[in-house]
Amino acid sequence: MDERLKKQLEFSLEIDKEKNVLRRTHITGGGRYENDAEHAWHMAIMAYLLKEYSNEEVNIAKVMLMCLIHDIVEIDAGDTYAYDAEGLKTQKEREDRAKARIFSLLPEDQKTEMTALFDEFEEYKTAESRFAHAMDNIQPLILNNYNGGDDWKEHEVSADAVYKRQNKTRLGSEKLFEIADLIIKENIKKGKLSEE
Amino acid sequence: MDERLKKQLEFSLEIDKEKNVLRRTHITGGGRYENDAEHAWHMAIMAYLLKEYSNEEVNIAKVMLMCLIHDIVEIDAGDTYAYDAEGLKTQKEREDRAKARIFSLLPEDQKTEMTALFDEFEEYKTAESRFAHAMDNIQPLILNNYNGGDDWKEHEVSADAVYKRQNKTRLGSEKLFEIADLIIKENIKKGKLSEE
Repeated sequence: MDERLKKQLEFSLEIDKEKNVLRRTHITGGGRYENDAEHAWHMAIMAYLLKEYSNEEVNIAKVMLMCLIHDIVEIDAGDTYAYDAEGLKTQKEREDRAKARIFSLLPEDQKTEMTALFDEFEEYKTAESRFAHAMDNIQPLILNNYNGGDDWKEHEVSADAVYKRQNKTRLGSEKLFEIADLIIKENIKKGKLSEE
Repeated sequence: MDERLKKQLEFSLEIDKEKNVLRRTHITGGGRYENDAEHAWHMAIMAYLLKEYSNEEVNIAKVMLMCLIHDIVEIDAGDTYAYDAEGLKTQKEREDRAKARIFSLLPEDQKTEMTALFDEFEEYKTAESRFAHAMDNIQPLILNNYNGGDDWKEHEVSADAVYKRQNKTRLGSEKLFEIADLIIKENIKKGKLSEE
């Protein structure tokens, strides 16, 4: 087998591990935690179906690919819960190491391309990255809401913390932020999100 | 919330159920069966990374979206193992009913678009559908091989049956068929695939 294809298949096998990285959100029905691969799949489909709500014109293929790979570093670095202040402090360093190792499995040109796409997502500077982040925020929000807000209640998440995150949804989609706002208000009312 | 967005979010919640549809392939490390959502995520990334091996020029965004949605009907119809002759007889009818129900949750224009994309995959007539099918075949093959071929052994799968499936990989990618051929031959040698 030639070296290039061998590397591509090794990378393909390596990312399989993302299926074992658990998030803090339950899938609908609440049976178990969602993993990163499922989350990414869900985000990519939602991105395609909701693209009309992006504030800016986007290259939807790029958004989808960004969604699909945005959590790959968590294979080494683990999932850092969006409301875990301690974990967030070391997140960047852990993820940088992972990024270098994992994308290095690819042939050089694809390593460069995938690393750039990953960085673009992280940097929040392009229309595509802003819309992909909106998906990263909205997808767990609708799952949480469907499950009665119990994931927030369990982790004692405050409405402020959720607003802090969802305010960024607004950068990608004003329209989807309106939905997030509705959902947050409902869950405050139901006592699932605390107001302090 | 307006009717259109409401439908799009309802569909988004409905497809979450795909995370509970189990396949007969184990994820790497062999810990548990893979589910349809993970499989689709994996295929879509592999499609992007391996697109240079498609026999024909493809619209890769279309291939990726096809990969992401190609198993959605299994929410109702269940996964039909590629080597289950009885299940395969009723597969089409079960999947047609599911297709009608699930895509009907979307607004009319998106229902039409997603149904057409799903049908295009099934019909095998376009370059995109042929390359997406190559991913559908190659992805479990490399997982199975990584896990020592035990999934084939457990289900007493014959080399002929695997060739029958992988011969279709050839329609999408001659190059990836060569790899499939290598893997099958190795697994015959190791006694993981039977020769009768």
